[in-house]
Amino acid sequence: MIEDKNPQYTDLEKLGEFGLIEHLTRQFDIKQKSTIKGIGDDAAILDFKSKQIVVTTDLLIENIHFDLSYAPLKHLGYKAVIVNLSDVYAMNAYATQITVSIAVSNRFPLEALEDLYAGVATAAKIYNVDVVGGDTTSSTTGLIISVTAIGEANKEDLVLRSGAKPNDLVVVSGDIGGAYMGLQVMEREKEVFKVNPQNQPDLEPYTYIIERQLKPEARKDIIELLKDLQVKPTSMIDISDGLSSEIIHICKQSDVGVELYENKIPLDPQVISTCEEFNIDSTTIALNGGEDYELLMTISQEDYPKIKANPNLTVIGYITEKNRGMHLITRGEQAVPIIAKGWNAIKNEA
Amino acid sequence: MIEDKNPQYTDLEKLGEFGLIEHLTRQFDIKQKSTIKGIGDDAAILDFKSKQIVVTTDLLIENIHFDLSYAPLKHLGYKAVIVNLSDVYAMNAYATQITVSIAVSNRFPLEALEDLYAGVATAAKIYNVDVVGGDTTSSTTGLIISVTAIGEANKEDLVLRSGAKPNDLVVVSGDIGGAYMGLQVMEREKEVFKVNPQNQPDLEPYTYIIERQLKPEARKDIIELLKDLQVKPTSMIDISDGLSSEIIHICKQSDVGVELYENKIPLDPQVISTCEEFNIDSTTIALNGGEDYELLMTISQEDYPKIKANPNLTVIGYITEKNRGMHLITRGEQAVPIIAKGWNAIKNEA
Repeated sequence: MIEDKNPQYTDLEKLGEFGLIEHLTRQFDIKQKSTIKGIGDDAAILDFKSKQIVVTTDLLIENIHFDLSYAPLKHLGYKAVIVNLSDVYAMNAYATQITVSIAVSNRFPLEALEDLYAGVATAAKIYNVDVVGGDTTSSTTGLIISVTAIGEANKEDLVLRSGAKPNDLVVVSGDIGGAYMGLQVMEREKEVFKVNPQNQPDLEPYTYIIERQLKPEARKDIIELLKDLQVKPTSMIDISDGLSSEIIHICKQSDVGVELYENKIPLDPQVISTCEEFNIDSTTIALNGGEDYELLMTISQEDYPKIKANPNLTVIGYITEKNRGMHLITRGEQAVPIIAKGWNAIKNEA
Repeated sequence: MIEDKNPQYTDLEKLGEFGLIEHLTRQFDIKQKSTIKGIGDDAAILDFKSKQIVVTTDLLIENIHFDLSYAPLKHLGYKAVIVNLSDVYAMNAYATQITVSIAVSNRFPLEALEDLYAGVATAAKIYNVDVVGGDTTSSTTGLIISVTAIGEANKEDLVLRSGAKPNDLVVVSGDIGGAYMGLQVMEREKEVFKVNPQNQPDLEPYTYIIERQLKPEARKDIIELLKDLQVKPTSMIDISDGLSSEIIHICKQSDVGVELYENKIPLDPQVISTCEEFNIDSTTIALNGGEDYELLMTISQEDYPKIKANPNLTVIGYITEKNRGMHLITRGEQAVPIIAKGWNAIKNEA
């Protein structure tokens, strides 16, 4: 294909609000049985019969949650959906519908919004959710994305943060710390680019961690796997802020303590090598990095045989009585208190 | 009470994200039977049994949808909820839950957010909805509010925009044009204030229209009234963008035409006198003003006896075959085509 050096961009004002909404939303068709009416009335209509429903919402703000200098709009639309679906799966529920609202300044042409919505549509297709509503409006400065996700579950399948019991095993899906290190790499390249715009970065060694940052996935597959294995976690949360924040949420809401083992925390080799390159402790990143959207759960010891051979699930510790506190047992066998630093905290330190 | 001339404001960063959410949300208790679990997990859990549910969402952006130089934060929190509830009532459904997300820059102290949430809490209490979730985050500049409302209805009670039939009557609740004229008055006073900050404006003659703008109500009472009167509208929409935009939505989605009568459009005397003062045509304002959050509906002719004595409902025209088009019959008995100018359009002209 020959690249058009002077692509024609379409001014948003030409379309008007109703035209814009119609243009952007006509790609969304209805697949869920529970969606009775999607976009186009004052509200969407849903019918869940005897199932319970879950609702969660997130607001993403330019230059707080994303930087358009390295986050492509299509990936951003995808990620905005994923972040919310992840919360639905963390309830052990299945996502069924989303609403997507955006506010944009007129520095964005129509084609930019088309990219953003293409990302939304891709995520909706892959995760089998219907886009049933939203709002499209102006902003005075940056891009704002607000997504609300709705999901369904049988009452008895729902998993809260509050059900962990002493002696339960702490289990994490996949590996963690990648999304944060991917961001570090992209921020470094942005600084290099500012100094020398001709420089072509070699991002090959960082492919996995950059994808973890720009295009994360929600672990619907883990929910399905748990169902197949006939394991119902006693508590569950998704890792959006970092392992330490999330395990503290579980401990506080379940009124228990925890011991995590540093040497059990699953890290991808690219996370380890990039941490070495940046001279950062990989455990600090795993504990506080955030945005991996893996699932952190506790399971009853009697379920251990069902999960122990599974490469997607790693036991990283166990739940204790509350008075034992919350500790990380280091490789040197020291017990270090777990503190919620979270995403913003390490960002500010860096 | 003695006014504190140097009130102590609390920096948001002192609380941290989790502290802030906990602080702001602890005033929200659960009243709806359908709310199984509210704030505090990855998602809220709801159970609607055999009812269908409706979902709607809106995004409000500082300096686009509101101006903090005259909109008090408490009213703004109230209005952000009302705007969404109005969409639920426009489906002939009852609002049951909301989620409220905000993004703020650190120019806002904690006390400002407390005011905003006090407004949210007041609306939630008056309209009997539970606040079941949300997101609190930073913004680089202004204030952003995103609200999603959920409601319930029996399947057979829901009213879409698409059910209007030729010969149906067009009915509007309350009176319209007030919210727009209230905004005009406040914008004028803001300009006066810029020139002479000592000037004390006399807003007494504008009390009603200013309240229509700053603290609108959603017409839950009309939904209840229609139920009592045993009238199910054939179509319904709320008036957020202006009468002309809304009737066009109904006509397009119902595949019909309409005749509206200029002399039937309900206007408050304060709207008429303020239009005269500003030298604006009051019909133009009624058609294009928006933000009144009244309900526009069509009803079958056989229901006319049930509504005709009611002071809350005014018949303003009737539905025709599509090929007759969409017209306003003026006081001079001329048929003028109805065009969607909407809120922003008249703003740009002004």
